[in-house]
Amino acid sequence: MEAQGNGAVAAAATAETGETASPGQAIAGPTNPMVTPLLTDLYQFTMFYAYWKAGKHHERSVFDLYFRKNPFGGEYTVFAGLEECIKFIANFKMTEDEISFIRDSLPSSCEDGFFDYLRGIDCSDVEVYAISEGSVVFPKVVQLLETPFLTLINYASLVATNAARHRFVAGKSKMLLEFGLRRAQGPDGGIGASKYCYMGGFDATSNVAAGRLFGIPLRGTHSHAFVSSFMSPDEIVEKSLQSSDGSHTCEDFVSLVQTWLNKIQWSPSLRGIFGETNQSELAAFTSYALAFPNNFLALVDTYDVVRSGIPNFCAVALALNDLGYKAVGIRLDSGDLAYLSCEVRKFFCAVAKDFGVPGFEKTGITASNDLNEETLDALNKQGHEVDAYGIGTNLVTCFAQPALGCVFKLVEINNQPRIKLSEDVSKVSIPCKKRSYRLYGREGYPLVDIMTGENEPSPKVGERILCRHPFNESKRAYVVPQQVEELMKCYWPGSSGKPRVELPALKDIRDRCIKQLEKMRPDHMRRLNPTPYKVSVSAKLYDFIHFLWLNEAPVGELQ
Amino acid sequence: MEAQGNGAVAAAATAETGETASPGQAIAGPTNPMVTPLLTDLYQFTMFYAYWKAGKHHERSVFDLYFRKNPFGGEYTVFAGLEECIKFIANFKMTEDEISFIRDSLPSSCEDGFFDYLRGIDCSDVEVYAISEGSVVFPKVVQLLETPFLTLINYASLVATNAARHRFVAGKSKMLLEFGLRRAQGPDGGIGASKYCYMGGFDATSNVAAGRLFGIPLRGTHSHAFVSSFMSPDEIVEKSLQSSDGSHTCEDFVSLVQTWLNKIQWSPSLRGIFGETNQSELAAFTSYALAFPNNFLALVDTYDVVRSGIPNFCAVALALNDLGYKAVGIRLDSGDLAYLSCEVRKFFCAVAKDFGVPGFEKTGITASNDLNEETLDALNKQGHEVDAYGIGTNLVTCFAQPALGCVFKLVEINNQPRIKLSEDVSKVSIPCKKRSYRLYGREGYPLVDIMTGENEPSPKVGERILCRHPFNESKRAYVVPQQVEELMKCYWPGSSGKPRVELPALKDIRDRCIKQLEKMRPDHMRRLNPTPYKVSVSAKLYDFIHFLWLNEAPVGELQ
Repeated sequence: MEAQGNGAVAAAATAETGETASPGQAIAGPTNPMVTPLLTDLYQFTMFYAYWKAGKHHERSVFDLYFRKNPFGGEYTVFAGLEECIKFIANFKMTEDEISFIRDSLPSSCEDGFFDYLRGIDCSDVEVYAISEGSVVFPKVVQLLETPFLTLINYASLVATNAARHRFVAGKSKMLLEFGLRRAQGPDGGIGASKYCYMGGFDATSNVAAGRLFGIPLRGTHSHAFVSSFMSPDEIVEKSLQSSDGSHTCEDFVSLVQTWLNKIQWSPSLRGIFGETNQSELAAFTSYALAFPNNFLALVDTYDVVRSGIPNFCAVALALNDLGYKAVGIRLDSGDLAYLSCEVRKFFCAVAKDFGVPGFEKTGITASNDLNEETLDALNKQGHEVDAYGIGTNLVTCFAQPALGCVFKLVEINNQPRIKLSEDVSKVSIPCKKRSYRLYGREGYPLVDIMTGENEPSPKVGERILCRHPFNESKRAYVVPQQVEELMKCYWPGSSGKPRVELPALKDIRDRCIKQLEKMRPDHMRRLNPTPYKVSVSAKLYDFIHFLWLNEAPVGELQ
Repeated sequence: MEAQGNGAVAAAATAETGETASPGQAIAGPTNPMVTPLLTDLYQFTMFYAYWKAGKHHERSVFDLYFRKNPFGGEYTVFAGLEECIKFIANFKMTEDEISFIRDSLPSSCEDGFFDYLRGIDCSDVEVYAISEGSVVFPKVVQLLETPFLTLINYASLVATNAARHRFVAGKSKMLLEFGLRRAQGPDGGIGASKYCYMGGFDATSNVAAGRLFGIPLRGTHSHAFVSSFMSPDEIVEKSLQSSDGSHTCEDFVSLVQTWLNKIQWSPSLRGIFGETNQSELAAFTSYALAFPNNFLALVDTYDVVRSGIPNFCAVALALNDLGYKAVGIRLDSGDLAYLSCEVRKFFCAVAKDFGVPGFEKTGITASNDLNEETLDALNKQGHEVDAYGIGTNLVTCFAQPALGCVFKLVEINNQPRIKLSEDVSKVSIPCKKRSYRLYGREGYPLVDIMTGENEPSPKVGERILCRHPFNESKRAYVVPQQVEELMKCYWPGSSGKPRVELPALKDIRDRCIKQLEKMRPDHMRRLNPTPYKVSVSAKLYDFIHFLWLNEAPVGELQ
């Protein structure tokens, strides 16, 4: 709908064709079936009617979608949500039901012709240019179309950026698990969070639906409730477990665990550390190991980590070891994670040594419980033994900044540039259809992004070019790029005949994102007071912006 | 799925029947088709397998869903999301595709029998008791089932509470419009936000999809881009407008507007206030009025509110007035809203007086632009003339606190009480199946909520009852209730044969919410340092909790 006049790169969709004119293979619909042409603000329809009434619906217009400020006090943003936008326009078509709802929602004076017109529209005459999804982007350099796109891009980019920031603090070697489903903004918030956290550098999710939809690796074991649902090992009926190689069967795994628990209690390095452990917990761990002998990972903090959870875990793990299975590890969900993880590691080392089980000291330690960038940073500073983090609430709600604030501004109509003025200079839009480039320096780092007019020659490797701040006259610098990357690609050509860039697989987008982040100069990436990355305009575009500005600004009456 | 052992009030779903055994009429599926049995954490399936393997899947267990702390520094929460939970369980059934995905996601050692078992389960043996949706609730008093419910309830309750708080600050007489779609956590976040903000006391939404799904009133007019898409009134081709009563037609509405603009410029009270107004803006307003003569509401801050937007608006409004139409009003989306709204009101009053248009001084003023509780409060303190607020980002993202933190704890299994202990007393769960009552005082305000054991007699009107803090021995008070309200109702009886409470219409839930909030004692409601509302337990339940606590707490070894 917003393909017409409002929210369209190119507005003159033909009313004749019911099919989208996309070249190449068909594009599937949006992941969420609720993403329909009605998922928009009412004023898109009122404005559209007004455009139609004024005969302006065939005018070609250009809109920019961008944000003004990087989130989380940082200097970069991961661009995400493009695929869902393209799927949306590729399948844009209003049903009779939808049209009749719009008819009922608009004043009864609206003319029938408009609703006939709605019936015919699609996005075949729209063109969408965008930076590749998963790219690192900076304020003002995302060009796109359509107001409802904001819904698809705002949160996606925000949470992908949040994930990237968590990865940066955690370090490359840690496993990052997204556990946010239950705290997201409802089902789709949860599914989107899983997708875009993976894109931003997480390794896996607990969200089964997201695993199925997007092929994201799944992780998860058990909760505190699982532990407290057991009373004691006596209630375990099926006690036998076959060895890993199938060569023999242990008929009473429960007794084997008990034997190990006694051995640990009186072993040289661990004597006196614990007394009687919790029996519900022991029963739960044993049952879980019987169900998943190859995937035994236990939550050890339901009662007392060092005096119950860890001894119980080790007893079960050593019993599994007797049968050729290797326990995966433990999870801590409360308490002082730095301290506890070190205590647990010591315990594991003592077991490895006392019982001669090489590798046991490396048993995995996962930490969860309200983690965020700050707590990861604090853990690093304190020293810890955590191998994997499960992060939920703070990650998916973007607690530190819950909205990105993308905007969508008209920059050209009928080949006439449009500028949105504001007393707040950061709110002035950059007019016209533009091209954007990323210029790289000698050391391979990106130096600056530059926007030019559509028909200006592109920056050339080895050629000096003046990069200007769009609004501040005194801020400018010459750059001699060692590499020039054009940022905007055609993801939806409509019927223009231009080649369409294919939508890459999620895994590939994730790889791009990780690679781009690694390429950034470290001072742009640091958590506190990062160096601003500069987004500039060409000298020609600068002059043009300021010419328009003077012409459009209202002239007051002196009184 | 979690209906089995994990996440179930009653766990022994029969594997034979494929139909839910709900009495009464059928319940429609969840609003969002993505709410399927897979919308859950993987560990629900791993635990379920472990329960099945241990033969514990027929044990009956009781789970409590509750939160520990009211959001936004307040002392109340609006309970929301129940309907979607009930729709979810009423239609719970796994497809072959879903089962085969789960099979692929679990270790290959899992036995076939489990997947056969999954095929048969539904929620016919589950029972769900809950406080009515839209009720004002307090920490610890929401009893429900199932972990994925958290996804449906957490954000719903949070955003409904946020909406209620905005309503409280704005006052009853103001119109509150939810404009958050583009800043929500994706499509479903946006749709949920619209539903639950309406429930919490908002009047309308801009979200067309939510309007269609839930019958919420829709509002919206035009954007800044609409204004800048016009160049000048010369481009308006169709200039005629029929009068409101159909008696005559103005052939050149554009000239009529121009005439009025000149009159206003030189009118006694307004002379010298403005010079030439912006012609794009004038063209946009005129076109919008031609399209919607009965619904003319203009965004007046694209250029300069007092020197362009308001004069242009008044010229169009007076031209409409000549033809018998009444303009709806203006919207301010930037600047000092308190100051500007007062200036606009003065302008309207001057127009009403100079041109003898009674009622014009009351033309509506809507304000938007990053509003939240604090800015509404600041506007009230400063004095303003705003009639309606459009609120987006801060409302739907719950900027002030992006997550509620509901939890879901096992409290009973096989008629055995279970308690979750923690060194943090606020994290200790209250064991057993319980009943909850709200006790009202002489003045009609609720005094305290009390939880009792399932089989205790209920509190009686006029009879003194001891209400104890669940964990703090010294906090207790006698209450003589003037009215006793049982809070938990049976919303899903499964096959128990108990009567099921029908799910009310959204409008009725909203009315309940508004009424309940009005009934609260004002000191519980105030924004800063509200008086805590007390949630207590009966003397018997108190004793029982502390008996269990002593028995379950680990006993350390003295060293």
